[in-house]
Amino acid sequence: MRVYNFSAGPSVLPVPVLERSAAEMLDTNGTGQSVMEMSHRSKEFKTIIDGAETKLRELMKIPANYKVLFLQGGASLQFAMVPLNLAAGDAPGVGKKASYIDTGIWADRAAVQAAEYAQVEVRASSKDRAYSYIPTAPAPNPGDAYYHIVVNNTIVGTKWAQFPETGDVPLVGDISSCILSEALDVSKFGLLYAGAQKNLGPSGVTVVIVRDDLVGHAPSWVPIMLRYDTHTVEGSVSMYNTPPCYGIYIMGLVLDWVKGLGGVPAVEKMNKEKAALFYDYLDNSKLFRGTVEKPFRSLMNIPFVVTVEDKEKKNEMETRFVKEAHTAGFVNLGGHKLVGGMRASIYNAMEIEGIKALIQFMEKFEAQNS
Amino acid sequence: MRVYNFSAGPSVLPVPVLERSAAEMLDTNGTGQSVMEMSHRSKEFKTIIDGAETKLRELMKIPANYKVLFLQGGASLQFAMVPLNLAAGDAPGVGKKASYIDTGIWADRAAVQAAEYAQVEVRASSKDRAYSYIPTAPAPNPGDAYYHIVVNNTIVGTKWAQFPETGDVPLVGDISSCILSEALDVSKFGLLYAGAQKNLGPSGVTVVIVRDDLVGHAPSWVPIMLRYDTHTVEGSVSMYNTPPCYGIYIMGLVLDWVKGLGGVPAVEKMNKEKAALFYDYLDNSKLFRGTVEKPFRSLMNIPFVVTVEDKEKKNEMETRFVKEAHTAGFVNLGGHKLVGGMRASIYNAMEIEGIKALIQFMEKFEAQNS
Repeated sequence: MRVYNFSAGPSVLPVPVLERSAAEMLDTNGTGQSVMEMSHRSKEFKTIIDGAETKLRELMKIPANYKVLFLQGGASLQFAMVPLNLAAGDAPGVGKKASYIDTGIWADRAAVQAAEYAQVEVRASSKDRAYSYIPTAPAPNPGDAYYHIVVNNTIVGTKWAQFPETGDVPLVGDISSCILSEALDVSKFGLLYAGAQKNLGPSGVTVVIVRDDLVGHAPSWVPIMLRYDTHTVEGSVSMYNTPPCYGIYIMGLVLDWVKGLGGVPAVEKMNKEKAALFYDYLDNSKLFRGTVEKPFRSLMNIPFVVTVEDKEKKNEMETRFVKEAHTAGFVNLGGHKLVGGMRASIYNAMEIEGIKALIQFMEKFEAQNS
Repeated sequence: MRVYNFSAGPSVLPVPVLERSAAEMLDTNGTGQSVMEMSHRSKEFKTIIDGAETKLRELMKIPANYKVLFLQGGASLQFAMVPLNLAAGDAPGVGKKASYIDTGIWADRAAVQAAEYAQVEVRASSKDRAYSYIPTAPAPNPGDAYYHIVVNNTIVGTKWAQFPETGDVPLVGDISSCILSEALDVSKFGLLYAGAQKNLGPSGVTVVIVRDDLVGHAPSWVPIMLRYDTHTVEGSVSMYNTPPCYGIYIMGLVLDWVKGLGGVPAVEKMNKEKAALFYDYLDNSKLFRGTVEKPFRSLMNIPFVVTVEDKEKKNEMETRFVKEAHTAGFVNLGGHKLVGGMRASIYNAMEIEGIKALIQFMEKFEAQNS
C-alpha cells in the first residue's frame, strides 16, 4: 500500500510515472533494453535526453540564449561551480566580488564555499529570527560578478516574494525545491540550478540553466568537470562523459506528467490550493502553528511546531506526533535535524487528498492531546 | 523482445535485477514507496546503502582500512579528485610528483587533468602501436605521491596482465570496466575507482575505494565536494549531500546477483569461458580479427576489425556488419568513434548464449561476404 510521503527530498513522484517506468523496465519503446542499459551515445537515448531538454524549455519558457544542462553532484557542487565559473581569478582566493543573501543553511553553505574563489560579501541575513523570513535585498555592490539567492529554502520553508533588482549583475538562484512549482521568469536570472530530487525526479541529476554569456570564463586551473563550457559543447551538451541516464529518463516522464496536467500555470494553481489548505489549518489550530512569517511562506515546504510552552513536553509531543503519523501512513514529517519540529513537504506530486488526510489526522491528534 | 546488448557502457544488466526493480517500483520492501521517493536519511534507505557497501566489501574482500564511497561525476571527476587529494599543493600547479602510464584515451585524459595539480610524468605509453598492448611499467620516481594506471582499457580492449610494483608509492587504478569481473587484490592499491555503468548498475554512481591514510590531505582551496574527507565522515559516509539513491539500490541488487552466482571466483570463471570462446572464433576467422596483442587481451571489451586490405571496402563492410547485426538483435557493436571498427563488450551480465549467438551470426556474415 502506498503511503503519503512528505519527504523534503528525495520525495514523492507521480504514480503514473512510476507505473510507466516499471512497465518499460525490460523493454523501453521497443528497444529491447531498459534505459539503464542504453548506450548514452545511442539514438534511443539521444531521443530521451533531447526530449527532456525540449520539455523543460517549453514548460519553463527558457529563452534560446540559455543552455540547459543535466549534470551530477547536486546543488552542493553548484555552490563551487558558480563561483569557479563566474568569479574565479588566476588562483583560488583572488576572484571577483559576489553578493550573497543568507536565508538558511544551504544559502550559508553556498556562501562559505564561494568564499574560497570569490570575494564574497553576505549582504543580508535572516539568521536573527531563525531564518523565518526573507530579508530586504540591497542593490549589488559595484564590481559584483553575480548576486546569489536561494529562491525557496527547503529546511526553513521560506521563499522570495519578490526578487532583488540586480541590473546588469547576473542574479543566480538555487531553485532546487521550487522548480516547476509556480511561474518563474527565467530571464530575470543569469543562472539557475536545481537538484532533481524534489519536483523533477530521482536524486543524481542536477539541472543548470545558464545564460550563454556566462559560459567560458573559468580559469584554466578549474577542474574540467566543473567548467560549464565542458558541458555545453555543440552536439554533445551534457555528454562530456556518461550522464545520469536513468534519472534523466524519469525526469522526462515527470515533465510529460506536468504537461498533461496543463503545465506550470495549472500546477501553480494546485500548489496554491494545497498550501492554502494546510496554512489555513495551521493558522486556526490551537495545537500546531507554522514557523514562517506570512509574506514569505513557501508553497513547497511547510515547517510547523506544537504550541506547548514547556520544552520537554513540546519535544515529547512532537516526537510522538511524527511517530504516530508514520504509523498512520504519513511518512517523513520530522523537521530537518538542524531545526527540529515538523515539516510537511508538499511538492507537485503530493495530491490534495494527501493534505486533506494529513489535516484530518492532525485534527484527531489535536483532539486527543488538548 | 530483449536484445543482445554489447554496449561498452551503460550496458546490459541482469534480467532478475530489472524484474525485481520493476516489481518494487511502487512499493519497496513494504515501505509504500519507490526507492526514488525515499528520504536518503530514512532508515529504509540506510539499510539499502549500508547493504550495498557490505556486499561490495565482501565480494571484493576490501580490507577494513579502506573506505568505500558512492559518489557522483564518473571516472572523469576522479581524474581531478585523485591529484587534488593525493598531490595538490598550496595552489594549482605546485603539487607533488605523480607517475602515469598512458594506455589509451582515458588514461591520457586522466594524466592531462592531473597535470593541473601535480607534477605529472607519463612514464610509459603504448600509443606507438595504437594502444594495442600494455607497456612495461618502470619503478616509481623518488617523491611520487602516487602511480596511476587504467586497469582495463574500455576503448582499446587491453588490461594489465601484472600490476607495477610501486613499493611505498600508492598505486591508483581506474577499474571502471573490470570491477568484479575477476579477482583483484585491493591491498595492492592505495585507491581504486569505477563508474558503475558497466559491471555494477546504472550510470550516475561512482565507486571509490580509498585507503584511510590517503584521506584528509586536500589543501583548503579544493572544492568541498571534491575532497574525499567530505564523504568519509563517520555515520554519514557518502551522505554529505543527497547520494544517487536509485543507482545505489540497483547496484545492491546487482551485488546480490553476483553473490547468488557464487561471487567473484564464479563470475571470473564464466568471464574467462565467454572471452575464450570469442577470441578463439576471432583467431580462427578469415574475415575478422582482434586488434589487441594476446597477453594483454581484456575479458570485458573485445575490439575487432574485418581483414580487408582496401580501406574503403573495409569501412563499408564494417558499417554494414554493425547495421545488419543491429537488425538481427545484436546491438551496440560499433567501435568507439575515436578508433572505429567493432567492439563487443561482454560484461558480467552478458550471458554465454549471447556470445554463442553472436558468433553464429558472424559465421553467417563471413560466409556471405567471402
